[in-house]
Amino acid sequence: MSEHTVSAYDEELTEMAGKIAEMGGLAEQAFADAVAALVSQDLELARATIGKDARLDALQQETEAKLIEMIVRRQPMGQDLREITAATRIANDLERVGDLAKNVAKRVIAIDSDLKSKKLAIGVEHMTELALSQLKQVLDAYARKDAEAARRVQEADAEVDAIYTSIFRELLTYMMEDPRVITQCVHLLFCAKNIERIGDHATNIAENVYYMVTGTRLPEDRVKVDETGA
Amino acid sequence: MSEHTVSAYDEELTEMAGKIAEMGGLAEQAFADAVAALVSQDLELARATIGKDARLDALQQETEAKLIEMIVRRQPMGQDLREITAATRIANDLERVGDLAKNVAKRVIAIDSDLKSKKLAIGVEHMTELALSQLKQVLDAYARKDAEAARRVQEADAEVDAIYTSIFRELLTYMMEDPRVITQCVHLLFCAKNIERIGDHATNIAENVYYMVTGTRLPEDRVKVDETGA
Repeated sequence: MSEHTVSAYDEELTEMAGKIAEMGGLAEQAFADAVAALVSQDLELARATIGKDARLDALQQETEAKLIEMIVRRQPMGQDLREITAATRIANDLERVGDLAKNVAKRVIAIDSDLKSKKLAIGVEHMTELALSQLKQVLDAYARKDAEAARRVQEADAEVDAIYTSIFRELLTYMMEDPRVITQCVHLLFCAKNIERIGDHATNIAENVYYMVTGTRLPEDRVKVDETGA
Repeated sequence: MSEHTVSAYDEELTEMAGKIAEMGGLAEQAFADAVAALVSQDLELARATIGKDARLDALQQETEAKLIEMIVRRQPMGQDLREITAATRIANDLERVGDLAKNVAKRVIAIDSDLKSKKLAIGVEHMTELALSQLKQVLDAYARKDAEAARRVQEADAEVDAIYTSIFRELLTYMMEDPRVITQCVHLLFCAKNIERIGDHATNIAENVYYMVTGTRLPEDRVKVDETGA
């Protein structure tokens, strides 16, 4: 099918991008809310965040079914096919960001007590800001079909990983100094890991945006040097 | 397209199932090797396991491209379309099982010391046996198109989760008793979490097999009651 001649098709592509933008907005909100609930030990916000995840799951299934149906009906090639497969993968990544946010919210309930010290959460908040900014930027790159912006998001993931490594070490130190904070610190470690993985999904999305726009793959993701394990 | 009339198409479906079986075998092996490396602190085996993951990633990309190409070319409907979309999702889950096995192998390198006590690893070994058996059974259910067997795999995931919860508590107790094992126990906790997630992927695969065979969804996954957080 030649590009930009079938206006009904263009409309479908636009509608699809709209669904992805909606999913992106929900994933960002869930992530921000989950960490806000963690930092303030707001159980109500945590429960609300968990409850909202079903909407993101449903949107992902809907989007995937719609995209497969488009492939069956339209038999797209080249750029068109790349846009559809990229959207399928991005929807998948956003659904997983939602799951990770839900995981953080579940830990708020598992902790169910005030954080012994606010300083425990400072690193997690900082990491969240960065990962959230990555997610916003990559969704923006997708909407604008901006390969260069996508490439920058991939590059910046190293920063999220560096903060994760520093949080990992810090929390281990607190645990060794004071056994009473062990349970809380373990939950915070898992939260930090979930946030680090949200950063990885932002990177996956960046790689898919780059491929969608250019038809070539970004150079292989840097080899992660990570003494904390994966 | 009517079913079972186009023999070239049947051949393609069989070839696709063969790729999935190959991926399944690699994922099982990676998982078993990673845990063996963990229990015996075998750094060489851990490194070999990490190195082999690229093959699984490549197979997943290959399979996905092939499946999309089949959809474009064949415009399948009903059962045929369900088989292709199920295969796409299963390939995705198997690639993630490989990633989780790689994560465990990376932790072996991060720990880089003998386990202070073999008892720390016993729970992890037991959990691995169960999750590995789940994975084998669901791949077998896929190969035989056995919806009932798939349903049993979904049900049995609760056992993997129960062992995870018990390991979580046990490791926290060890950490509180002896701060010198904190670092190791944290790595083991993450390993246990990775294994629990492998169980979740076996469940995802089971749900896809069930849907592929029957055209109906398994009842919603039980609500996980999990005081450890997600």
